Amino acid sequence: MKRALIVGRFQPYHSGHHEAIKNILKEADELIIVVGSSDESHKAENPFTAGERIEMISIALKEKKLFEKCFIIPVADVHENSIWVSKIKSYCPKFDVVYTNNPLVKQLFETSGLEVKKMVSKLKDVDGVKIRKAILSGDEWSGLVPDAVKDYLKKIKAAERISAIVEKEQKE
Amino acid sequence: MKRALIVGRFQPYHSGHHEAIKNILKEADELIIVVGSSDESHKAENPFTAGERIEMISIALKEKKLFEKCFIIPVADVHENSIWVSKIKSYCPKFDVVYTNNPLVKQLFETSGLEVKKMVSKLKDVDGVKIRKAILSGDEWSGLVPDAVKDYLKKIKAAERISAIVEKEQKE
Amino acid sequence: MKRALIVGRFQPYHSGHHEAIKNILKEADELIIVVGSSDESHKAENPFTAGERIEMISIALKEKKLFEKCFIIPVADVHENSIWVSKIKSYCPKFDVVYTNNPLVKQLFETSGLEVKKMVSKLKDVDGVKIRKAILSGDEWSGLVPDAVKDYLKKIKAAERISAIVEKEQKE
Amino acid sequence: MKRALIVGRFQPYHSGHHEAIKNILKEADELIIVVGSSDESHKAENPFTAGERIEMISIALKEKKLFEKCFIIPVADVHENSIWVSKIKSYCPKFDVVYTNNPLVKQLFETSGLEVKKMVSKLKDVDGVKIRKAILSGDEWSGLVPDAVKDYLKKIKAAERISAIVEKEQKE
Amino acid sequence: MKRALIVGRFQPYHSGHHEAIKNILKEADELIIVVGSSDESHKAENPFTAGERIEMISIALKEKKLFEKCFIIPVADVHENSIWVSKIKSYCPKFDVVYTNNPLVKQLFETSGLEVKKMVSKLKDVDGVKIRKAILSGDEWSGLVPDAVKDYLKKIKAAERISAIVEKEQKE
Amino acid sequence: MKRALIVGRFQPYHSGHHEAIKNILKEADELIIVVGSSDESHKAENPFTAGERIEMISIALKEKKLFEKCFIIPVADVHENSIWVSKIKSYCPKFDVVYTNNPLVKQLFETSGLEVKKMVSKLKDVDGVKIRKAILSGDEWSGLVPDAVKDYLKKIKAAERISAIVEKEQKE
Repeated sequence: MKRALIVGRFQPYHSGHHEAIKNILKEADELIIVVGSSDESHKAENPFTAGERIEMISIALKEKKLFEKCFIIPVADVHENSIWVSKIKSYCPKFDVVYTNNPLVKQLFETSGLEVKKMVSKLKDVDGVKIRKAILSGDEWSGLVPDAVKDYLKKIKAAERISAIVEKEQKE
Repeated sequence: MKRALIVGRFQPYHSGHHEAIKNILKEADELIIVVGSSDESHKAENPFTAGERIEMISIALKEKKLFEKCFIIPVADVHENSIWVSKIKSYCPKFDVVYTNNPLVKQLFETSGLEVKKMVSKLKDVDGVKIRKAILSGDEWSGLVPDAVKDYLKKIKAAERISAIVEKEQKE
Repeated sequence: MKRALIVGRFQPYHSGHHEAIKNILKEADELIIVVGSSDESHKAENPFTAGERIEMISIALKEKKLFEKCFIIPVADVHENSIWVSKIKSYCPKFDVVYTNNPLVKQLFETSGLEVKKMVSKLKDVDGVKIRKAILSGDEWSGLVPDAVKDYLKKIKAAERISAIVEKEQKE
Repeated sequence: MKRALIVGRFQPYHSGHHEAIKNILKEADELIIVVGSSDESHKAENPFTAGERIEMISIALKEKKLFEKCFIIPVADVHENSIWVSKIKSYCPKFDVVYTNNPLVKQLFETSGLEVKKMVSKLKDVDGVKIRKAILSGDEWSGLVPDAVKDYLKKIKAAERISAIVEKEQKE
Repeated sequence: MKRALIVGRFQPYHSGHHEAIKNILKEADELIIVVGSSDESHKAENPFTAGERIEMISIALKEKKLFEKCFIIPVADVHENSIWVSKIKSYCPKFDVVYTNNPLVKQLFETSGLEVKKMVSKLKDVDGVKIRKAILSGDEWSGLVPDAVKDYLKKIKAAERISAIVEKEQKE
Repeated sequence: MKRALIVGRFQPYHSGHHEAIKNILKEADELIIVVGSSDESHKAENPFTAGERIEMISIALKEKKLFEKCFIIPVADVHENSIWVSKIKSYCPKFDVVYTNNPLVKQLFETSGLEVKKMVSKLKDVDGVKIRKAILSGDEWSGLVPDAVKDYLKKIKAAERISAIVEKEQKE
């Protein structure tokens, strides 16, 4: 049995994440999805709570019958990146391989003796910054996230929240 | 769809927890299992890491095909119990009802407007303190936890760890 | 009896705050003034300590015989805005209504079930950023804060401190 | 003008505190009342939130027309007692003298160059531990706190809360 | 070149520590002395600040010309013992071997792949608890710490401080 | 005996620091070198761990036989600059004078009653920002740090790390 791990902030969970996860689960039996910066919410870079992000991810995984193969684990930030890998290990069940395209994450996990692989997705240019901007400006963004996530974001009034956050942060 | 929530430290996950969870899942469709004191480990009251506790719980739930109905979410302690409910809400998907036999947990959730129900289990006298003592002293404890958890605890050398922790804390 | 609450950083306490508070106290019997970011000081955005800000506010309120109607309560920042309202509630006596023009603060308090009202002041364009800049550059700023606050800021050598902070932060 | 400072946890605010404060305000013009351990609540040693404690203190002070002479300031604990005085100074308006009967508090403030005086009260044997026990056991405790505080404690169901806390902590 | 590491709280630095360090420096070229619980002071178990403990250690090492072979590094506590080794590694220059008689410290460092050796000292029954009690009660304790440390403890009035701390903690 | 103190982040330790330290040790007998922001690492402004920075400093000092005159002490950041001096005092042996060219550091130490002197170095325009940029871009930087530090930075692959950090932070 092989267990993989990925790390993301999932602000929000989008089609790039979804695609990559489906690909990893072709190679691995189980996947740990670390929801990073779990102690941040209602900020421009981190509008959604950990609970909301876990909800988004699970909605999308359940549609694809992938939920039962995954652990979704919120982990708060640590200042010292040098101890971050050790925090991840403390919060997660044992894992065999890390998938990431981030060079620092790669260095940190490799230094600690873990195997690291590249994450493959056809949707490289989909990212959270772009989606949060589109939600804010009213541009079309529904193709950028799984349909079920789109519905969820509308239900929790994501556009209204992001707009309030941005207005607040500009004032300060 | 009805989603329930329980809170525990699961040091370790035992048959009392297991029994109660099976009962709750007769009444609720989904269950959030909050792994409390997630930032404590290798201490007499909290010997296991959050990751190890998540592993124990999931092993036991998978045996009973209950894993896909559950969210297992580690939440660190907060000093101010008055804001603890709000932290739980921030880290978890939405939930409808809380099961607990703890009077303070009941008060805190009810004050915040949530429905609280009694947790029912035939194994009321099984608790973590008793099991940790039994593991330490070499007494028979295998009946007190699900079989798969027993095997896991042996694999991670629980007895050796608890003994080292106790020796350290006695010295200080 | 009706008790209102406002939140600010009061860096420094200025005529816009003062005007708004006088207006609120025409509608409410008592007012809680939350001094936010109380754990920040000697930084460009937060030059004054919580103690200094409490001193400024009370000097100005005492002049107007409003001090005895107010609670001035320092509250440190929390990362998770989702639990911030609950922290405010934990640190303050009970209150009935929140006055704010900040859309995020409005959303957060309303979500938690509290009444929120608009803050009215004729001095909308007076703000902390502008005043800190004026203090730094030597521009005229005395009209922007209550007279007693101006005297206090001179006594604690605000200009010298802000200048030292800015020089330090530019170097880093 | 002379400003004094006292520190307490006020769990709850009792007649010993009240008596001492009235005495200090015969010698000093203003008094800062630091509500210590402000980040603790719903625990056996610290059952009440900072907000509730501020409410108790202000109810009692208002009855005696002393509220307008006081600042009531919550300050969270710091691990390092060596920097605690400096935290108090950062959170409070300037003060001239500290009243305390606690030898460590005396040492810490004197080391930092402040004048320290003895606190005088005829009610030396009234303390929080005794009152919390009396509330829990149903013994007579109404004489031990100012009448207005007694009414407040009944309103917030102090006995019920303390009992729930104690039951919870005994289980752990 | 071989670099060793030991961990202690050094409350205070005593002859047992001193003896062990001299022995280690017969086997290793350099030694890192981690001053643990560096963020605790003025408490019964941790009366001295990190700075005072560093001073004690260096006074004793300088007498023996060992100071230039040592790094003395304060490290604050972490709740999660599972990430503590990683915090030590982040705060210290690289090291080859850990000396400890504590079974948990041994387990934690070995799990992380480091060599662990037994610490040898003829003074096994000298410990901090005993010395703090002797200082408090006025019993003879001068033989239990290096002479230079004894003089230092008298200079900073250790007996007076410990007595004040104990009186405070008993009241709470 | 006179003991001086300086504060820096030493990201990395460079020739400007080295020059200044040699000059201070002509006036003072001993020097405390506070390694600030010790809890930050693997970030663009703070790429190196506290341990790595202590290693760099000690390598350079040992070459000049200055190591035995110095204490190298990591101190984590505090939000409240108003209590930062008190944290420094708690973590360091007693000192008589602070050397700094930073106006805020000067103000904070002087307010607390300490003597502050200007730091003299012929290498004023050597700074960490410039060196980190040079390391990243492959420009010549070897003259900007002591030779032994240059070798150390190459050994720990500083260029590779800084490049990975920058790539990560740009994505977020």
